[in-house]
Amino acid sequence: MFNKKITENLSKSSFIRAMFEEGNRLKAIYGEKNVYDFSIGNPEMEPPVEVKQSLLDIAMSKEEGMHKYMSNAGYEQTRKAVAKSIKNDYDYDIPYKNIIMSAGAAAGLFVTLKSILNPDDEVIVFKPYFAEYGFYVMHAQGNLKVADCDESFMPDIDSFMRTATSRTKAVIINTPNNPSGVIYPKEVLLKLNEAIRQVEKKYNTDIFVLSDEPYAKIVFDDATVPCVFKCFDKAIIINSYSKSLALPGERIGYIAVDHKIPNAELLLNICIFNTRTLGYVNAPALIQRVIQQSCEAKVDVEDYKRRRDLLYNHMIECGFSIKKPQGAFYLFVKSPVEDEMEFVEKAKEYNILIVPGRGFGMPGYIRMCFCVSYETIKSSLPKITQLAKEYFK
Amino acid sequence: MFNKKITENLSKSSFIRAMFEEGNRLKAIYGEKNVYDFSIGNPEMEPPVEVKQSLLDIAMSKEEGMHKYMSNAGYEQTRKAVAKSIKNDYDYDIPYKNIIMSAGAAAGLFVTLKSILNPDDEVIVFKPYFAEYGFYVMHAQGNLKVADCDESFMPDIDSFMRTATSRTKAVIINTPNNPSGVIYPKEVLLKLNEAIRQVEKKYNTDIFVLSDEPYAKIVFDDATVPCVFKCFDKAIIINSYSKSLALPGERIGYIAVDHKIPNAELLLNICIFNTRTLGYVNAPALIQRVIQQSCEAKVDVEDYKRRRDLLYNHMIECGFSIKKPQGAFYLFVKSPVEDEMEFVEKAKEYNILIVPGRGFGMPGYIRMCFCVSYETIKSSLPKITQLAKEYFK
Repeated sequence: MFNKKITENLSKSSFIRAMFEEGNRLKAIYGEKNVYDFSIGNPEMEPPVEVKQSLLDIAMSKEEGMHKYMSNAGYEQTRKAVAKSIKNDYDYDIPYKNIIMSAGAAAGLFVTLKSILNPDDEVIVFKPYFAEYGFYVMHAQGNLKVADCDESFMPDIDSFMRTATSRTKAVIINTPNNPSGVIYPKEVLLKLNEAIRQVEKKYNTDIFVLSDEPYAKIVFDDATVPCVFKCFDKAIIINSYSKSLALPGERIGYIAVDHKIPNAELLLNICIFNTRTLGYVNAPALIQRVIQQSCEAKVDVEDYKRRRDLLYNHMIECGFSIKKPQGAFYLFVKSPVEDEMEFVEKAKEYNILIVPGRGFGMPGYIRMCFCVSYETIKSSLPKITQLAKEYFK
Repeated sequence: MFNKKITENLSKSSFIRAMFEEGNRLKAIYGEKNVYDFSIGNPEMEPPVEVKQSLLDIAMSKEEGMHKYMSNAGYEQTRKAVAKSIKNDYDYDIPYKNIIMSAGAAAGLFVTLKSILNPDDEVIVFKPYFAEYGFYVMHAQGNLKVADCDESFMPDIDSFMRTATSRTKAVIINTPNNPSGVIYPKEVLLKLNEAIRQVEKKYNTDIFVLSDEPYAKIVFDDATVPCVFKCFDKAIIINSYSKSLALPGERIGYIAVDHKIPNAELLLNICIFNTRTLGYVNAPALIQRVIQQSCEAKVDVEDYKRRRDLLYNHMIECGFSIKKPQGAFYLFVKSPVEDEMEFVEKAKEYNILIVPGRGFGMPGYIRMCFCVSYETIKSSLPKITQLAKEYFK
């Protein structure tokens, strides 16, 4: 009666969202404080004070026309502010016309995929990867192909070469990575670019790198995120302010198309057309104005570091095996039993909500978000100790 | 190199948007006041005072977590407020769970089409129709079929019967209509429902009516808009606050699925899944809160009426032929020459920007928006007189 593909897909919907809803159910039974919900990357932090001030300034402004349609690509002033922030962050000059404001990274990814893929084209991701990519690719009539990572969660280039075909049209990378927290260093990106060049040459095709970077500003211990424009021939940055400004409900981000991509202007026009005709029309006006004023602000990363350290150190003490995350706000933990679903269920008995690794293409692991409050992490520690004792004697 | 279908479609992109950009170009040359831009439905009016106050209250609020993710369907409180407003407006009880907040009507339509269509299913619209429907249907892998209207711009039921096939899955209606301003009366809707039943019976199919109602609150001369839930077996309302609250840049609206649709709950789950996986994730949080407080507010319709009357009366005096609009903020004017493109070009010589009827499936007409300022309309009148003299001696 309805769309068949989606009806079938409903059941294998989001583990993360399912856990989020489960969390709400448990909180209603046991009380908010007695449920340790590490499931969804829904930052507990408030937006930075600059963002709150921008919002107030806009709400108090007598300026007319602030809520009208603008060009589908967004306000020129906002796009200029974003281009300037890319220059500041990466020392890379990008014309503001190559920036399209989008309703978050999810919208940015979908718009871009819809713009570059033809039906049955393939998109490669590396394990572990954010499961939603599969749905964006599906809706864009493409096919997701999963390449392996090595034991440090870095892209396995040999696996990439085996996965790539004449239909490969894009590679999505996500660094700092959700869920592993690793940052791909420049050498790795350059190697990947070299591999992409070989595939392009072999099949006489074009392969775009979509770099999904919502965590680029949430990095620890002096780690830095390389500029993909400097590493790839055909990179498109998809970004979101959901994490860096703690605004996930507001849906704001951007697409930045490197001007050295051949026919970049045509690609931009297609992306703008798709922004309109996929029903986004434009990124929300009011939040675009906030971004114009505050896109260089960010949440308190030191605060995230304290949370990471508290949870990471305790988990390690308890005997869990984890690669220490350099960025983002997730721990990707080796499940103490082979079937991580069993571990997820066991954790639920302690009111600890975590997400199975199979949701990220890696069974045998689980993901925990440390974007919950410091207090929540602190009060979860005795429960984590008890949970650990079920496995580590 | 990019998506072929879209690359081909770029050139036949939006007449309306093209005119909007042309308007910006002309304004830069001749000055804002000397260009009479009747092209895009971008309300010049400011949002009602209630909306501005809600926004200020929210910006000043110390409440925490206002910008976080919520359920993909939107805030429960906002959905309840919308259900209540439907009850108030239409005296129809709809459970709040049947409301999904969407990023405007464009998003609501695309999400719904993606939820009900299977590839190559057909969607029927009646002339004249909003051209964007064609793109939403295309992106949902469906085919748009256009049925005729009668000389009053009412749906031609015989034409509908000839257009419907075993692949017909949906009918989009838009009343008050953009561009004609007509409201389909209850008898017409009931007749259409009867025709739909016949087609469903003939082919043993299900056909949904998507009622796109952004202008439902902008009606003149005591006209009323019938409740589609009372007229159709399987109706879904797609609404937007872009026009009623003059917030088009903010992207906020909703999908309301009639609970008497068989398997309505499954359909809602599919729509929620698609809201997430088409990259919307959720309608913008902040504006959802504004809607929760102000969804019963509306812009000053009397003000629109004054603008309508000023422009309509003058055009009629000049000799143009127009059906007086009962709602929305457009005049759909019979072109004084057969090829309305010629008329559009001639009007541009007077710095008058209008949109050709072929953009709405009806060559031989043009559309003018009277949501521009009263002053703009007033100062355009001498130019309109001059333009008219080119055709009516």
